[in-house]
Amino acid sequence: MRDVAVIGIGMTKFGELWERSYRDLFVEAAKGAMKDSGVDNLDSMYIGCMSGGLFVGQEHIGSLLADYLGVTPIPAIRVESACASGGAAFRTAWIEVASGLSDIVLAGGVEKMTDVDGGLATYALATAADAEYEGFHGATFPGLYAMLAHAHMHKYGTTSEMMAHVAVKNHDNGSLNPNAQFPIKLTVEGVLNSTMVADPLHILDCSPVTDGAAAVILAPLELAKSMGLPIIKVLSVGMATDTLALHSRKEITHLASVATATKRALDLAGMTIGDMDFAEVHDCFTIAEICVLEAMGVYEPGQAGPASMAGETARDGKFPVNPSGGLKSKGHPVGATGIAQIVEIVKQLRGTAENGRQLAKANRAIAQNMGGSGGSSVVTILEKG
Amino acid sequence: MRDVAVIGIGMTKFGELWERSYRDLFVEAAKGAMKDSGVDNLDSMYIGCMSGGLFVGQEHIGSLLADYLGVTPIPAIRVESACASGGAAFRTAWIEVASGLSDIVLAGGVEKMTDVDGGLATYALATAADAEYEGFHGATFPGLYAMLAHAHMHKYGTTSEMMAHVAVKNHDNGSLNPNAQFPIKLTVEGVLNSTMVADPLHILDCSPVTDGAAAVILAPLELAKSMGLPIIKVLSVGMATDTLALHSRKEITHLASVATATKRALDLAGMTIGDMDFAEVHDCFTIAEICVLEAMGVYEPGQAGPASMAGETARDGKFPVNPSGGLKSKGHPVGATGIAQIVEIVKQLRGTAENGRQLAKANRAIAQNMGGSGGSSVVTILEKG
Repeated sequence: MRDVAVIGIGMTKFGELWERSYRDLFVEAAKGAMKDSGVDNLDSMYIGCMSGGLFVGQEHIGSLLADYLGVTPIPAIRVESACASGGAAFRTAWIEVASGLSDIVLAGGVEKMTDVDGGLATYALATAADAEYEGFHGATFPGLYAMLAHAHMHKYGTTSEMMAHVAVKNHDNGSLNPNAQFPIKLTVEGVLNSTMVADPLHILDCSPVTDGAAAVILAPLELAKSMGLPIIKVLSVGMATDTLALHSRKEITHLASVATATKRALDLAGMTIGDMDFAEVHDCFTIAEICVLEAMGVYEPGQAGPASMAGETARDGKFPVNPSGGLKSKGHPVGATGIAQIVEIVKQLRGTAENGRQLAKANRAIAQNMGGSGGSSVVTILEKG
Repeated sequence: MRDVAVIGIGMTKFGELWERSYRDLFVEAAKGAMKDSGVDNLDSMYIGCMSGGLFVGQEHIGSLLADYLGVTPIPAIRVESACASGGAAFRTAWIEVASGLSDIVLAGGVEKMTDVDGGLATYALATAADAEYEGFHGATFPGLYAMLAHAHMHKYGTTSEMMAHVAVKNHDNGSLNPNAQFPIKLTVEGVLNSTMVADPLHILDCSPVTDGAAAVILAPLELAKSMGLPIIKVLSVGMATDTLALHSRKEITHLASVATATKRALDLAGMTIGDMDFAEVHDCFTIAEICVLEAMGVYEPGQAGPASMAGETARDGKFPVNPSGGLKSKGHPVGATGIAQIVEIVKQLRGTAENGRQLAKANRAIAQNMGGSGGSSVVTILEKG
């Protein structure tokens, strides 16, 4: 396999973008990434999108977006792994460049979630759970993660206050991100007093429903070097799956797909989690960030909550997590999220994160993107060249 | 890139399978392919599915099907390119094996289309067209292909009788395929007298709505040889895109994505279309088979209709097309179709096609899978080892 680099990044502002169609959003992000890398053509592209069918009545979006980007007849495939669709698109693009088949490959993600009413958005998102055994019985994601949170509280003594600290920290970071949907600062009291959605998760424990797109351009490392571009190496990508249904798992507080995907990525890179300077992780709910950090081995089970409360995951902490603001503050257009994580990491590794959210130490980082309640996970390791 | 071989095939019977869920169908096909190849584990898998969201209210099907197949935590990604989703899954699986990242990779496809009423099935299929410029105005695929047929008739003198001969030939082949949804023989008069769906297309010019799944196992060629399996080499895969909307094309009778994908596949294999012994092509409508054969360069524009009427594409003709029965007779579970084409080609190259439909000469063949009205196309060339 050839070594691969990320040579360009682009993304739209995330938010309720009612005046813009999803094809416009994708084109803006893709054009941004192409301009950033200086390429004017692509060999191939992969687009992460969770549910074009339910959100906008459109499948076949690979071709559609290739057309609107003006790059037909290149191969263009939509890939889907629920909320890990962006990560999955990055993985397939990485493999295509590494294989030698193509040189310049775009990995993008897009979701337009606010064109339908809230009930349908919740239904569409619930198709990432097991439709016959979870969805059929009315389970939606706030409820599923609430069960996970209760189990974690019961087993490890995790508290609502610990979870609130995750939200406060991510909004503090997101307040410095010009692309964030909710660049507002929160307080622990504010989170704890916000409307209860699914006990113990308040509305401010939940990531929002978002429109947005993100894109990155991948190329062989040697080609990137010859182009004189800033070198951001893709050290590895790991992916793993787990049962969709929570009831099928041995231990619901342990996100096995996250643990396996992380191990695969670290093994392929020949590293340990201690070699990473910071992380972007999938905080679709505050409890998710806690469970993810434990599954990745950043903390022992039960320790991520106290560590978050102690400020260890803040920008100036021991191990900064979600300097972008995460899904919580930046927003969560599901198909785009995994790519937006890569965009933030590339900015940090280049030393170009805006508004003073640049981390002091940013040489190597890990991105963790997750589908549903951990039915799939994609983990990517990037390094400054 | 490493050389790659198909080492196992499996598929379900195609039809209206109301008593079986799509997960059952996929598992049957995948288990069949694993048994056929003698492998009891996979490194990774890709599943073609056009619209799990609209047909069965389920996205995130890569993980779900990995779970039901009993192969978690392997990476499992759903890929989508409308009716070319199966072909796209084959392409991504081929690249992953060729890259060296994985050895044993399953490429599957599944669609469960008959659990919803006919109106919703037509709506779901129409999401392969441009939702804002075609779907919004009420265009569905019979109508879009009817426009294409009228243009072809006007430009080249193609007749309804020529199109009917395509249906009769494919049903003659499909009558010998134990997995076909409609293994019934037709007559030209029967086709011409059947209900008009969208002038000039009769109901018997159209492929049916179908439930079904198919799967193949890919492995490095050298590994396949060491396993002592029948060698079916993947010589190349080509993919191309085009505008979704027919009105954006310079010439609607010319399927540019099919021409480009075919050229790419032939160039990569270092061959010409004359080197192929037979083909499986995407006959979602009878006119589609005619346009596809012309775009692939099997016939000059305007010549595929007369050639079909003259029997040149029959099993004993100069260039047999769709010995499986094609989408017309075998059925068209959209996400599975591209994989089912590979299954038929492997059977023919192995010399194991059932019921006397084995072709006399079957050393090398080409599969052509198409999304929508040609918005995407995937072309694969396979050779007996």
